Amino acid sequence: MAGSSRRAGGRRLQLPLLCLLLQGATAILFAVFVRYNHETDAALWHWGNHSNPDNEFYFRYPSFQDVHTMIFVGFGFLMAFLQRYGFSSVGFTFLLAAFALQWSTLVQGFLHTFHGGHIHVGVESMINADFCAGAVLISFGAILGKTGPAQLLLMALLEVVLFGLNEFVLLSLLGVKDAGGSMTIHTFGAYFGLVLSRVLYRPQLEKSKHRQSSVYHSDLFAMIGTIFLWVFWPSFNSAPTPLGDGQHRTALNTYYSLTASTLSTFALSALVGRDGRLDMVHVQNAALAGGVVVGTSAEMMLTPFGALAAGFLAGTVSTLGFKFFTPILESKFKIQDTCGVHNLHGMPGVLGALLGVLVAGLATHDSYGEGLESVFPLIAEGQRSATSQALHQLFGLFVTLIFASVGGGLGGLLLRLPFLDSPPDSQCYEDQIYWEVPEEHADLAQGSLRPEEPDTQA
Amino acid sequence: MAGSSRRAGGRRLQLPLLCLLLQGATAILFAVFVRYNHETDAALWHWGNHSNPDNEFYFRYPSFQDVHTMIFVGFGFLMAFLQRYGFSSVGFTFLLAAFALQWSTLVQGFLHTFHGGHIHVGVESMINADFCAGAVLISFGAILGKTGPAQLLLMALLEVVLFGLNEFVLLSLLGVKDAGGSMTIHTFGAYFGLVLSRVLYRPQLEKSKHRQSSVYHSDLFAMIGTIFLWVFWPSFNSAPTPLGDGQHRTALNTYYSLTASTLSTFALSALVGRDGRLDMVHVQNAALAGGVVVGTSAEMMLTPFGALAAGFLAGTVSTLGFKFFTPILESKFKIQDTCGVHNLHGMPGVLGALLGVLVAGLATHDSYGEGLESVFPLIAEGQRSATSQALHQLFGLFVTLIFASVGGGLGGLLLRLPFLDSPPDSQCYEDQIYWEVPEEHADLAQGSLRPEEPDTQA
Amino acid sequence: MAGSSRRAGGRRLQLPLLCLLLQGATAILFAVFVRYNHETDAALWHWGNHSNPDNEFYFRYPSFQDVHTMIFVGFGFLMAFLQRYGFSSVGFTFLLAAFALQWSTLVQGFLHTFHGGHIHVGVESMINADFCAGAVLISFGAILGKTGPAQLLLMALLEVVLFGLNEFVLLSLLGVKDAGGSMTIHTFGAYFGLVLSRVLYRPQLEKSKHRQSSVYHSDLFAMIGTIFLWVFWPSFNSAPTPLGDGQHRTALNTYYSLTASTLSTFALSALVGRDGRLDMVHVQNAALAGGVVVGTSAEMMLTPFGALAAGFLAGTVSTLGFKFFTPILESKFKIQDTCGVHNLHGMPGVLGALLGVLVAGLATHDSYGEGLESVFPLIAEGQRSATSQALHQLFGLFVTLIFASVGGGLGGLLLRLPFLDSPPDSQCYEDQIYWEVPEEHADLAQGSLRPEEPDTQA
Repeated sequence: MAGSSRRAGGRRLQLPLLCLLLQGATAILFAVFVRYNHETDAALWHWGNHSNPDNEFYFRYPSFQDVHTMIFVGFGFLMAFLQRYGFSSVGFTFLLAAFALQWSTLVQGFLHTFHGGHIHVGVESMINADFCAGAVLISFGAILGKTGPAQLLLMALLEVVLFGLNEFVLLSLLGVKDAGGSMTIHTFGAYFGLVLSRVLYRPQLEKSKHRQSSVYHSDLFAMIGTIFLWVFWPSFNSAPTPLGDGQHRTALNTYYSLTASTLSTFALSALVGRDGRLDMVHVQNAALAGGVVVGTSAEMMLTPFGALAAGFLAGTVSTLGFKFFTPILESKFKIQDTCGVHNLHGMPGVLGALLGVLVAGLATHDSYGEGLESVFPLIAEGQRSATSQALHQLFGLFVTLIFASVGGGLGGLLLRLPFLDSPPDSQCYEDQIYWEVPEEHADLAQGSLRPEEPDTQA
Repeated sequence: MAGSSRRAGGRRLQLPLLCLLLQGATAILFAVFVRYNHETDAALWHWGNHSNPDNEFYFRYPSFQDVHTMIFVGFGFLMAFLQRYGFSSVGFTFLLAAFALQWSTLVQGFLHTFHGGHIHVGVESMINADFCAGAVLISFGAILGKTGPAQLLLMALLEVVLFGLNEFVLLSLLGVKDAGGSMTIHTFGAYFGLVLSRVLYRPQLEKSKHRQSSVYHSDLFAMIGTIFLWVFWPSFNSAPTPLGDGQHRTALNTYYSLTASTLSTFALSALVGRDGRLDMVHVQNAALAGGVVVGTSAEMMLTPFGALAAGFLAGTVSTLGFKFFTPILESKFKIQDTCGVHNLHGMPGVLGALLGVLVAGLATHDSYGEGLESVFPLIAEGQRSATSQALHQLFGLFVTLIFASVGGGLGGLLLRLPFLDSPPDSQCYEDQIYWEVPEEHADLAQGSLRPEEPDTQA
Repeated sequence: MAGSSRRAGGRRLQLPLLCLLLQGATAILFAVFVRYNHETDAALWHWGNHSNPDNEFYFRYPSFQDVHTMIFVGFGFLMAFLQRYGFSSVGFTFLLAAFALQWSTLVQGFLHTFHGGHIHVGVESMINADFCAGAVLISFGAILGKTGPAQLLLMALLEVVLFGLNEFVLLSLLGVKDAGGSMTIHTFGAYFGLVLSRVLYRPQLEKSKHRQSSVYHSDLFAMIGTIFLWVFWPSFNSAPTPLGDGQHRTALNTYYSLTASTLSTFALSALVGRDGRLDMVHVQNAALAGGVVVGTSAEMMLTPFGALAAGFLAGTVSTLGFKFFTPILESKFKIQDTCGVHNLHGMPGVLGALLGVLVAGLATHDSYGEGLESVFPLIAEGQRSATSQALHQLFGLFVTLIFASVGGGLGGLLLRLPFLDSPPDSQCYEDQIYWEVPEEHADLAQGSLRPEEPDTQA
């Protein structure tokens, strides 16, 4: 207990000071650099003599709100499946994402909307900042329960920068299409987190093993996250696409892809389950893989059948990954992937990138008509062939894997700094070291869970 | 246990094979028949020289998202009130609705948007598919806890076809108005499910009686479903109406009707409750009856007072139904209605149809002005009198009851096929035969619930 | 038990009769006064030869839906943190808000949209009614657990009238700007509730003290409320603003303010917590203060930095309020503030009003350009200087505090009427006297909670 108090003493100042420092820094940078864009500034908007219904707000804000809900409700509750880590799952999601929104406004702003010495913000920058927060939360999923909040904030500090750079290379330099972020969000976030988890490998993690499972109601809380993610994913993929048919088609493709990943997840989960029983972990996660896998291609002329096929494949791969690959990932590769982000974001993200390569390579003037300009401007303008676009897409995946791996490695080294608030092996997946936990629960938890557990004497 | 294993052995292949078979079949049909419509196809949209802000997406997608949330979050959690059936309630809702979206895209497509050998899809077909999924979930509510997932998929396979046919007869052949589906969704879904439940009658169901009640937190999970249904119901009824005043008025009427059903539900629940206590079952369900009862008429010039009166009546009837009629339904009619869909969807749906008869019969050129064309085109064009429209509405209700009853009967016969995954009487309302349930819960459940229960020895 | 039965006997009729009486009265008033406005009436809309996409519905309904979700899901679940009061928190929120929507349609209608003997309703009146319901629920938060449902309905009956009058004085007579309601909603609702709680002071409340805390899962239910409030708050503040840049800017400012209040809440909570531990009460509440504090100024040219600074300040003040001021409020001022509304709505509301004074006072023609007309029409038209507008804003705060205090006092006297359904001191924060509670819970609760508690013998 003395050791715990000392640790707590260090923590007492670490999280507050880091929060205040980061907030102070972003506030100063906001004061110097961030300005309303022409859609949010009173003078600029009216100077332009715009008609109010033309404000971008009316075309993107409903989608933004769905994305915002996914980030905070979806990710937060999806990770609340652990029996004694619900406060941290929902709470640290809240903290991390709030910081990431500010910080990525700056990073993405410098890279994408920096004109005349200023970053200009509006609903599009809000969507992009939320996307970046999504990548950070995916990485969080890989290390859930094994890191403290100060560590997580440092991770976000680094990851947001690398996310912005990778996105800039892909979208602006390589001319890669990736509206829903199969590469920039899912592949990047997953492999960043997995490499980071590898660096933070804990050989003695079985000391916390009894807390790595769910309880009945924690699984239902997690389903709140799952279902909101599932329902709003069409808005996620379509939020940043060109207006009109592009946004409409993206939502439609995502909708169908998700229905197929749901069916394949139930099929595979029962097939590989003990006595044909379904597994909540699969349903909570793999059923969402259909949203990830069309993140690059949903904007394209994927066709409704293509969406079903992609979703079906993603749900299958993801479910089999949970069953067969996650154990190997830990035993062979020493990667402890708490939420199975490799199965939900990693493999489906890579598949999604490859699907994007395929669908881009098949693009023709016939199938897109005049719409080619908005989906593949470089092809429409004759600067690139469809094959060349496909190769650029493939190269984008490669770049993303490099950024994610190197970034995750760096992140791991950063988080291993010994003075940080990392929990001991025996206290992983446990709210009580970071949160005031209601007494009854503490009693109940210690009473009902493996009485032989020597946890409290540690 | 041996019997259970054998059953499990059959189940092990049944659900996966059925999922794969159904997914394979719909995928092939999608490949052959389903195409983007002119709002989602890149070439068609740009060929038409449309302005992007005119894309139907911007007028219907926010409502669609609300409907989508109702189907998956609303219905899923509303049915999670049972103490040991939360995984199944949320999970099977997820599976059933995902399949229904694909299958009804095809069925409704063949009936409504089949041109040039192809079905054309966009946000309107998405809304309609979600509506059909809603009807399937209503039927699911009547048999909740008494059927396995393979049975449920077969039910959906049949019900989606009959839903489409009934809707086609009403909307396309009879010219009936039913935007929010008092008839096509609620009455149809409820009586289909109730007749089906009659055919599946289990005289020995009291063996599972101890699991038919809720626990404290399961009631709160159910309230998540209730409140999301309540809040988004104005979007449900208005999602498919003509744009402009029609959509606006429908949302407004539904909003007021729901406030009144909430007040009458609280009033009646306390009035008939033991010592004036409120009953969660009433609040979770009857408070929503105001949305059902204006499903036909909310689009019409119902007036705000009319909306209040309708909602008040529906909440009253629904609450009294739960208290006095549900027990009779089981004892006299041998219909075991787990969620009380007769009270929330059956009676209020029929009332809503009758209210539609009344309000349609009162339509005048004066009260609708030029707007008559979009609400009652046949009256505006002089093809029908208001009285004739009213009689057509009434006939629509009659047709719906026939379709639902015959369909429910057929469905019941189908689900009684002996090799299906029906749970034994002693294992109804129990997740554990279909799902891996966290150990603590299993222990806890067996420890805390009636220790004399010989359930595990069966 | 005899006493309890007698109380129950009175209650048996009290709540139903009051519901029926209030519903009957509003229904009659609706019949006489409430009519569709020109956007929802079939004849009026088409007579005006409007284009359907111009209907206000398409610009305000998505925001309305977010507000609606906040009122019913957000407030309802936020208050469900108490271990044995979840049914009442969610249920009475439902009842109170449903009644408030009807009643404030009438009150606000008489004050704002009464033309030709009629109140005209549409999406704007729906938003305003929801706002009024928000104020009622804030007051509910101050007295949560200490009042019966009939008392609460009477409170709403009074508060809605005073809310409408105060709002009318501020917006229509004084020309005060307060889009997101820092004054009209938060300050008014909080001080109304706090003064009311003072009048209802219970010196013996420690008899129920063991129920004033949360349990693990009740805190997670509360986080559902928190996160939905946080995510949708940008829609709340922007729902009633002028279209175009105004609505867009308001949402953006609120978004940033909330991120900052989240960071400062986590910082301060850990700083003042035992061993640096975070407190769920702070995270659930203070993190939202950023939405309250920009309720007046988010519409103005606050600048993104200004939003961050305001949010940071609000989160700090709110967290410190929970830690240090709430105990004093009870011990020194005899105000028992169950949900800490003084910290989330009271102080941040007053700060928000003062921030509005400041930002209004700094308004220049340069910074707003032609947009000045829509934010500060009286300044743009030369009827007022910016300083004068600032002074009017300040006077608006003063008026609000008077209305709230006098109203809360009157409300307290009304609720102290001895025949009302007030719970005894030993039964506060307890669902069981108003609701049928599932048996297991009752057993469990009595078994697991302080066995020495003489509660049931009382």
